[in-house]
Amino acid sequence: MELYYGISGSGFVCHTINPRLFKEQIAFIIKHAGDKVLFADLTFLPILEALAPQLRKLKAVVMLTDEAHMPKSSALPKLKSYETLLAREKDQFNWPELNENTACSLCYTSGTTGEPKGVLYSHRSSVLHAMAVCTPDAFNCSASSTVCPIVPMFHVNAWGIPYLAPMIGAKLVMPGAKLDGASLHQLMTGEGVTFTAGVPTVWLALLDYLDAEKKTIPTLMRVGIGGSAAPPIMLQRFADRGAEVIHAWGMTETSPVALTAALTGKHAKLSNAEKLAKRAKQGRPLYGTEYLVVNGAGKPVKHDGQEFGDLHIRGAWVASSYFKSKEKAAFKREGWFNTGDVVNVDEDGFFQIVDRAKDVIKSGGEWISSIELEGIMQAHPAIKEAAVVSRPHAKWAERPVLVAVLKSGAVLTYEEMVMHFTGKIAKWSIPDELIVVDQLPHTATGKLLKTVIRKLVLAR
Amino acid sequence: MELYYGISGSGFVCHTINPRLFKEQIAFIIKHAGDKVLFADLTFLPILEALAPQLRKLKAVVMLTDEAHMPKSSALPKLKSYETLLAREKDQFNWPELNENTACSLCYTSGTTGEPKGVLYSHRSSVLHAMAVCTPDAFNCSASSTVCPIVPMFHVNAWGIPYLAPMIGAKLVMPGAKLDGASLHQLMTGEGVTFTAGVPTVWLALLDYLDAEKKTIPTLMRVGIGGSAAPPIMLQRFADRGAEVIHAWGMTETSPVALTAALTGKHAKLSNAEKLAKRAKQGRPLYGTEYLVVNGAGKPVKHDGQEFGDLHIRGAWVASSYFKSKEKAAFKREGWFNTGDVVNVDEDGFFQIVDRAKDVIKSGGEWISSIELEGIMQAHPAIKEAAVVSRPHAKWAERPVLVAVLKSGAVLTYEEMVMHFTGKIAKWSIPDELIVVDQLPHTATGKLLKTVIRKLVLAR
Repeated sequence: MELYYGISGSGFVCHTINPRLFKEQIAFIIKHAGDKVLFADLTFLPILEALAPQLRKLKAVVMLTDEAHMPKSSALPKLKSYETLLAREKDQFNWPELNENTACSLCYTSGTTGEPKGVLYSHRSSVLHAMAVCTPDAFNCSASSTVCPIVPMFHVNAWGIPYLAPMIGAKLVMPGAKLDGASLHQLMTGEGVTFTAGVPTVWLALLDYLDAEKKTIPTLMRVGIGGSAAPPIMLQRFADRGAEVIHAWGMTETSPVALTAALTGKHAKLSNAEKLAKRAKQGRPLYGTEYLVVNGAGKPVKHDGQEFGDLHIRGAWVASSYFKSKEKAAFKREGWFNTGDVVNVDEDGFFQIVDRAKDVIKSGGEWISSIELEGIMQAHPAIKEAAVVSRPHAKWAERPVLVAVLKSGAVLTYEEMVMHFTGKIAKWSIPDELIVVDQLPHTATGKLLKTVIRKLVLAR
Repeated sequence: MELYYGISGSGFVCHTINPRLFKEQIAFIIKHAGDKVLFADLTFLPILEALAPQLRKLKAVVMLTDEAHMPKSSALPKLKSYETLLAREKDQFNWPELNENTACSLCYTSGTTGEPKGVLYSHRSSVLHAMAVCTPDAFNCSASSTVCPIVPMFHVNAWGIPYLAPMIGAKLVMPGAKLDGASLHQLMTGEGVTFTAGVPTVWLALLDYLDAEKKTIPTLMRVGIGGSAAPPIMLQRFADRGAEVIHAWGMTETSPVALTAALTGKHAKLSNAEKLAKRAKQGRPLYGTEYLVVNGAGKPVKHDGQEFGDLHIRGAWVASSYFKSKEKAAFKREGWFNTGDVVNVDEDGFFQIVDRAKDVIKSGGEWISSIELEGIMQAHPAIKEAAVVSRPHAKWAERPVLVAVLKSGAVLTYEEMVMHFTGKIAKWSIPDELIVVDQLPHTATGKLLKTVIRKLVLAR
């Protein structure tokens, strides 16, 4: 937190790195970004030691500890103690006057394929994003909120929460390394957390813990879920505990929050089931962003909640290029960024992510949304986690396959799977196969690695 | 509403005029602003007719009506029908790309003394102001809100509400000319208003009507009050009806909203009376504005809720000059604007307006807040409206005088007044005189005209 404000406020760029990336990716990112000084917790010393040969060009490696806890010997060059450096400085510091377009932070996309790509944020874009994310239809945070981001500070600036909490005077609670259900429950009840935000995987663990231990988090009023789509059952499970889920959508390239699924006045009279269906979509654009959804013919799609199209976005906190990259394909004229997501738009302007463009299953001229199928299976009592990918098919081009991790002791047959899908989707969309596995591969930020899962299916 | 967006969106400046100003002031403002085209409701035709000689330089006077309702004959030059002009245009309009710093609107201060002064707003400042005012600690508006500004569209852009409602997708309800209790009750219950905003005078009438008729506005959740200080009893009367008052403070020069009195997490444990006292202050700065409160010696005041000082403010929606004016006294170096308000600041950073600098009563070296005394008397059952001004005094320099309008049939003696003040303020702050009048003079925007009231006292 000190580094967020100290580095950016001094006119430098705070470049966060996901320590769970592969070592090669970390080395690539440090070199590509042109990092000058690296700050790290002691926990990550082994990772850094292994990277020592690639860190020679850094001016310093600063460990976030005092002199007494510094490593006795290390292969790392120019190793310094953060507290020792701080103690040398005066209490007074003259913050420079910075142009609002000065770069303040840098994140790299976790990229399920290819090299990580950097997105540079300015003070201006970060402030506007945080202001928009405070509003009642987004994270709805105020000076009476206690805000606890479970999304880490290296993951697209923790969705802007380290900026918005001081901005509006909220109490900010940071989790430690332990993100299991018991640890989160203890932290949140102890600190009286009213708002939290994170990816679905974390909430699954917390909800299961609360169920198993018959515990509650009485102060919790709102949960921001993004990173990947939250299954409708997850919204319901939080609602049963008195906490409203706000489904949000974004990308590293969009700072990240761009859509939130808050109901509008016209939805007041919907049934609970209808409201849930609406709120399980990715939602409506925040003011400050603009959208264009175009079908294969390059025409805007109908707002009927059915027709699919590629989602393009531009706005005050949307990137117009990657940092030091020649990759321009995603950036179009007049600031439009092609998200690579396929969406539909309903009559209320609610967007629903149908799939990543590259994960859509194209079967006999029809498109099948892998995400829709995963959401349906996630509600099945035997399922712990579900992934749907394509297998090439001679007649239909591609056919869907369900790859599932089952709950401890649970059993699921192919026939039971078909029965669960029947009536919920078109018959030809039901997967041809069920493959049960012990675990599914994820990116460092918890997203399903579909490229690896497709290879796994091909190998069977 | 069409003019707000049509004029500003085309790159022109939408200059609103308060039709309740004196004719001479209206003529002055039109000339000073360099207005090119005047748009007006038919209601205001008589005012315009009387000003006809001063309107000769306008390119057109456009009446907001169709051809059938246009006046048959008029002294006004180049009179046109709005609907006829619109009908001539194509459905498609290419909005120009505007730099965000382009001027979009212009308001003149109502000025209790001197000529009205113009404040020019940019698209940028108006957007940032509206984003800040949407947040939970300000007007807390969302797409599920039904928003009804009782503050008129010519009064500092209706506090930004015509911008923020479309921005976040709220339903916007505009009142007509009738602002009496019965009309507002009918409008708000009929449309299901959840948020409204206006000056204390309007709410006094509405609350009295609801009391007398034993009526409610069940959907109303939040009431923004500003323009002048709301007496604590008004907050309580709304609270008794389930509506939370958000006290807001601002000026034409600050777009206008700059402070809002929303409680923070640390106030959760206060008693209801303590919360009310806090919320009756003008409140905390919105993110995007900065404050400096300096005493007579030019030093920052202590944050003890006691020491008075002059309030200076700067920020993203604070003016740095008046439009086409040589008056620079209020604008200091580095963007600071001297508001002319005297405030104290408490340990939580809540500001309380003690008085207008020119209305503070200086008695025997001590400062007496006329606003504090008015607030106390406003809670007395006999009082309809209370004003406290100074009368020059040979020994003490100035002494306070209470000028009061009583409720129909009510009686108030000087001794009853003294008893009501006793124990609430220092004994030497209690007014030396009580003058009962039939009515008090106000500016066109409902503020007490202290200059006139002081003359009235001197004439007794």
